[in-house]
Amino acid sequence: MYYIGIDLGGTNIAVGIVTEDGKIVKKISVPTGAHRPFEEIFQDMADCIRKLLSETGIAESQLKSIGIGTPGCLDTKQGMLIFAGNFKYGKLVNYRELMQKHFDLPVYICNDANAAALAEAKVGAAKGIDNVMMVTLGTGVGGGIVIDGKIYEGHLTAAGELGHIVIVHEGEYCTCGRNGCWEAYASVTALIRQTKEAMAKNPDSIMNETPLEKVNGRTSFDAAKRGDKAALEVVAKYQEYIADGLANLVNVLCPEIIVVGGGICKEGDYLLGPVNEMMQKRVFGAGLLPERKMVVAQLGNDAGLIGAALLHA
Amino acid sequence: MYYIGIDLGGTNIAVGIVTEDGKIVKKISVPTGAHRPFEEIFQDMADCIRKLLSETGIAESQLKSIGIGTPGCLDTKQGMLIFAGNFKYGKLVNYRELMQKHFDLPVYICNDANAAALAEAKVGAAKGIDNVMMVTLGTGVGGGIVIDGKIYEGHLTAAGELGHIVIVHEGEYCTCGRNGCWEAYASVTALIRQTKEAMAKNPDSIMNETPLEKVNGRTSFDAAKRGDKAALEVVAKYQEYIADGLANLVNVLCPEIIVVGGGICKEGDYLLGPVNEMMQKRVFGAGLLPERKMVVAQLGNDAGLIGAALLHA
Repeated sequence: MYYIGIDLGGTNIAVGIVTEDGKIVKKISVPTGAHRPFEEIFQDMADCIRKLLSETGIAESQLKSIGIGTPGCLDTKQGMLIFAGNFKYGKLVNYRELMQKHFDLPVYICNDANAAALAEAKVGAAKGIDNVMMVTLGTGVGGGIVIDGKIYEGHLTAAGELGHIVIVHEGEYCTCGRNGCWEAYASVTALIRQTKEAMAKNPDSIMNETPLEKVNGRTSFDAAKRGDKAALEVVAKYQEYIADGLANLVNVLCPEIIVVGGGICKEGDYLLGPVNEMMQKRVFGAGLLPERKMVVAQLGNDAGLIGAALLHA
Repeated sequence: MYYIGIDLGGTNIAVGIVTEDGKIVKKISVPTGAHRPFEEIFQDMADCIRKLLSETGIAESQLKSIGIGTPGCLDTKQGMLIFAGNFKYGKLVNYRELMQKHFDLPVYICNDANAAALAEAKVGAAKGIDNVMMVTLGTGVGGGIVIDGKIYEGHLTAAGELGHIVIVHEGEYCTCGRNGCWEAYASVTALIRQTKEAMAKNPDSIMNETPLEKVNGRTSFDAAKRGDKAALEVVAKYQEYIADGLANLVNVLCPEIIVVGGGICKEGDYLLGPVNEMMQKRVFGAGLLPERKMVVAQLGNDAGLIGAALLHA
């Protein structure tokens, strides 16, 4: 049997046929056109599924379920989007019913960050571990919690907004409307802001070799590796912010393993080695309890799609 | 059938006989003598149980289990204390085996803050609700998480250290070794510090009618109710700190209900009304999702004992 996984993003929709053990047989991606009515978007998703079936020779009768990962706040029991800023239709759309107009199959939905966490816990970096916390450092800071092998959604399915914990009282403005959220310090967006601030303050820094509009998440890391003092400070402070939020979450959730995802993880141990060390020192009972495991996500951009396909389990 | 609940604190041990539905039949309290060897402390607990049986006429055969709530980090499966700063013996003591030398009964242990949360979820302020977060504002800030009607311990049973989330980067020193923890801003200890600081800065404040050594958690509240400007500011800022930590935790856990405990809750709506309002505005999806329920704990100092007795369930 096969499972359809859909990662419905604000920019692209990725649709894949996935095996029971989380392997992608084939996937395709189309632009979301998030300004369009939901009927059109769901028509596109259905077309993608039919195209995948035709190209792989898999029969519709071999499909067991369809899973959709999406940003926003959901009523997963009803299969309903409550609200999401990413789509023009915005709120109160029953994704399950919409999809079932096209396919007579069970349809599951979940938050995209939760889907990624589930995928890493089931078939990725935390495979076989039941209590997993995943944090993704990207444009924002997202996350998901897996407890006893299942996504933990809490009441109103609004749990796991891991980026939105204030770590700096009256700090930087966050997209969620608060000030000082972890996201506003540990996201790549935040790193870029921190990099630009350091460039302005340190005209001699080699970071200034990069034109302002080309500064990205790598700028400070590249310069730090060349020994630039201001860049080393940016990186160290960024690592401290990441570690602080992680330690907060470990003290609340105490997962067996922490999976860190997002493009910035390509920096590998250079980024995460010191983060891990700082975090271990900051958690409650440090030195008295075994160290918490921290690993880099394995599934990359496919995690959401795979996790959505695995929702049936 | 009856259940023994024991709240083993650093100062006192409270022992009670509890009914299936969480009512205390009778309880007694003795000093812990935390400097003593664990054998002596467990002998005292056993003596208390026998005394309660004798005074109530309940037979040992009518007891179904013994539950012990205790500070510290535990291996609840083994019934083992891993470490706790509160007792001289400190670490690696098997509470279950020690108690079973006295009684041939199932023995359960759990963290005292978790026990209190379980009691409030089962028979207290959150009775009948399955997903509960309890926060106690006392000398420190403690907490417990109940998911699907059960204590959530996480890996290493170290979850639920809700006071130890940094909300003020590089802020006040916390007893856990970090700086800026919620506990260092929202505990009564912190409120007293904030009160004293405001008194020093505002010599005209009527808070200065209280001698420094008599300042307590009520000082600022009493003066604020009399319209004292400096006191009003202390109270408002304290409320903001509480709300900030609560909103952080709601964003991570999204419980169905938040139970707030600790002596300071005697201030009732004067304290918690504004806290609730600030928190509701700060949580992710504010205004788009229904408000989270917040209630005051009902079981007071008995919560730990009752929760320990309910561990069997």
